[in-house]
Amino acid sequence: MMNFEQKLENYAELVIKKGVNVQKGQPVMIACPIESYELGYLMAKKAYDCGASDVVFNWYDDALGLLRYEKAPLESFQEFPEWIKIRQEYYFKKNGAVISITSSDPTLLESVDPEKIQASNIAQSKVMKPIMKYTMNDMNAWCVVGAASKGWAKCVFPDLEPEEAVEKLWDAIFYTTRCDQEDPIGAWDEHVATMDRHARFLNEKQFKYLHYKNSLGTDLTIELPKNHKFLSAGSTSDIGAEFIANMPTEEVFTLPKKDGVNGVVYSSKPLNYGGNLIDGMRFVFRDGKVVEYSAEKGQQYLDQMFSVDENGKYLGEVALVPYDSPISNLDIVFMNTLFDENASCHLAFGKAYPTCLEGGTRLTDEELEEKGVNDSLIHEDFMIGTEDLSIIGELENGEKLELFKDGNFAI
Amino acid sequence: MMNFEQKLENYAELVIKKGVNVQKGQPVMIACPIESYELGYLMAKKAYDCGASDVVFNWYDDALGLLRYEKAPLESFQEFPEWIKIRQEYYFKKNGAVISITSSDPTLLESVDPEKIQASNIAQSKVMKPIMKYTMNDMNAWCVVGAASKGWAKCVFPDLEPEEAVEKLWDAIFYTTRCDQEDPIGAWDEHVATMDRHARFLNEKQFKYLHYKNSLGTDLTIELPKNHKFLSAGSTSDIGAEFIANMPTEEVFTLPKKDGVNGVVYSSKPLNYGGNLIDGMRFVFRDGKVVEYSAEKGQQYLDQMFSVDENGKYLGEVALVPYDSPISNLDIVFMNTLFDENASCHLAFGKAYPTCLEGGTRLTDEELEEKGVNDSLIHEDFMIGTEDLSIIGELENGEKLELFKDGNFAI
Repeated sequence: MMNFEQKLENYAELVIKKGVNVQKGQPVMIACPIESYELGYLMAKKAYDCGASDVVFNWYDDALGLLRYEKAPLESFQEFPEWIKIRQEYYFKKNGAVISITSSDPTLLESVDPEKIQASNIAQSKVMKPIMKYTMNDMNAWCVVGAASKGWAKCVFPDLEPEEAVEKLWDAIFYTTRCDQEDPIGAWDEHVATMDRHARFLNEKQFKYLHYKNSLGTDLTIELPKNHKFLSAGSTSDIGAEFIANMPTEEVFTLPKKDGVNGVVYSSKPLNYGGNLIDGMRFVFRDGKVVEYSAEKGQQYLDQMFSVDENGKYLGEVALVPYDSPISNLDIVFMNTLFDENASCHLAFGKAYPTCLEGGTRLTDEELEEKGVNDSLIHEDFMIGTEDLSIIGELENGEKLELFKDGNFAI
Repeated sequence: MMNFEQKLENYAELVIKKGVNVQKGQPVMIACPIESYELGYLMAKKAYDCGASDVVFNWYDDALGLLRYEKAPLESFQEFPEWIKIRQEYYFKKNGAVISITSSDPTLLESVDPEKIQASNIAQSKVMKPIMKYTMNDMNAWCVVGAASKGWAKCVFPDLEPEEAVEKLWDAIFYTTRCDQEDPIGAWDEHVATMDRHARFLNEKQFKYLHYKNSLGTDLTIELPKNHKFLSAGSTSDIGAEFIANMPTEEVFTLPKKDGVNGVVYSSKPLNYGGNLIDGMRFVFRDGKVVEYSAEKGQQYLDQMFSVDENGKYLGEVALVPYDSPISNLDIVFMNTLFDENASCHLAFGKAYPTCLEGGTRLTDEELEEKGVNDSLIHEDFMIGTEDLSIIGELENGEKLELFKDGNFAI
């Protein structure tokens, strides 16, 4: 059996070689929790081995983040520093690759004044919006991965001792990213090929509508725009490097027609919104827009999310994930979108990926709007998949086809 | 006896309250080694308690710094990112306070290609030069302090076990910063008052020349410009907050007349130049400029230092430190300028502090040049004090006065 160090090294190598696929002469940015120093160091080493020109860390820390929210005045959250945008853009323009390591305690900000969080989220979104295109349009290689932290692990495994919880969370991360296998990179090649087949099938069909139904009460119709593209794990950056933006990933996804969503949908897992959990959500859509919503837990954070901008009430992503995915079969609620979204069919509020429309990255904002591509400061996934989810696809000519049966692909 | 945690908390509080003297609404930047996370966290907490609007960390790490030097190509060191200047200036303009925690292994870069180090130093100096004024002119509060790291401690105490070495280095840091005393802040008030008395005496005398002699062979005459000011520990920022730029500090210092240095001087301790040690230095000056130099160890780094720019061969600082200072009496060679310079009379090559000239911060670059204030991309201290150092001060009218005898103030 592989020991922890070997799996961690596999992981670092996988993220560098398949995740962002570092090219010679390319700078690499890593947003890394201080607690995950060991992983960050290994990634830097692997990146330099692949010829990276520089590896730049953006270190963050839950305890310091919380301290600031607790102690700094509200006004200080209303301005987001421009230099952070300038820093990111500096490396984006040098074709830099970006790695984000997510590991935060999902309940970290529970006791924090929601006004501060909201002010911070809005200020950040406004400053960072102009540079979202670098990743949303796949101009640069980017990859989001997880790292087990004490704070996160205690939420996922509240009954275990802290060290055991961290160990178990690492095991889950290694399992879902295939880093506990002999040849993780080979395993990913195979996995990506399977998902590509699903995406190809969906793209050839060009469904006009998807009808969702399950026993939670979901009864939703989503219209897909003409020339939509279902994407799977792999993307290609402007310099022609293939990368995988999420690890793990089990989803094929596209965009909805902005005004073509109608009906009701229920969430099937909690959503971690900027350090706070929202659970038991219900949304009613009319012509694309949420006209009614509620949550059993965290309603105020949902209010906040929808108050960022008008288009945050429209969908930007439609993702298909088999209920029997490896992540789902672990039967762990990670309370972290990267993992939970890959255990479940999901949707996202807010900005759509222009890459999901044929030729979409070459269109202006106005042209995208016209074609029903939603734009917003937010992009928030929420999970809707269940073991009895049914999705019927309807073709342009009215023909219907069973796409998902009992939570899984029926194709 | 106080335990480590208490002393560390004293230290964090001292740096925040006396070091940079954080004011309400002020942002605080901390350059902090990841290894010193605990100290950084305590400083952040104390800073917020004093009303800081934000505490922004610039985390660094010896191992990652070394990895980059070992693996990244030379070209990548020839460009220093502009965003780093923009980040600093963003907080300087908000009257931010700046804390630098120094802790690096002084021999870290021994095996690194000197060309890379040189390229990096020059690129950094050029980009950062326009914002040196914020600290060099005391516009913003700034403070440099030390933190014991494994890498540094093993160099200072090579015969001790790693943990013991770190502990002993911390003890030395706490001792020299008075943080092992019951009332560190009170102790600093007293200490600053003593140094202020020395500075006042020197400023009233307005010596025209200082003649240095000792048994190493030093025989040097330094001319001081008209209206020079000897400064001691305390400074005042533009927003009127008193701060202490170095902790520990035992020096009173001023600037030399750029073209008024003649004779020969020998170093008395090694100099840590950007991660490399230079030892056994000898410099011959004529009309302010070094016309001959040598080092028993690290000659190539000395060559590098002098190749940055022409004015790097002229002096920018003259500092008086009693040989019997608390730091000196520890009889430890710290191989770290912050500590070693405060155990010994020293000089610095390169840029002079305009604050050391009456009205100097209001002068243009040309006016400063005219008055003999040196300007350079570098500012490098080197130690010259010995137990038999004699300094004779000569007044404008030719009268001579014994200023230092057997290494200590004779006044």
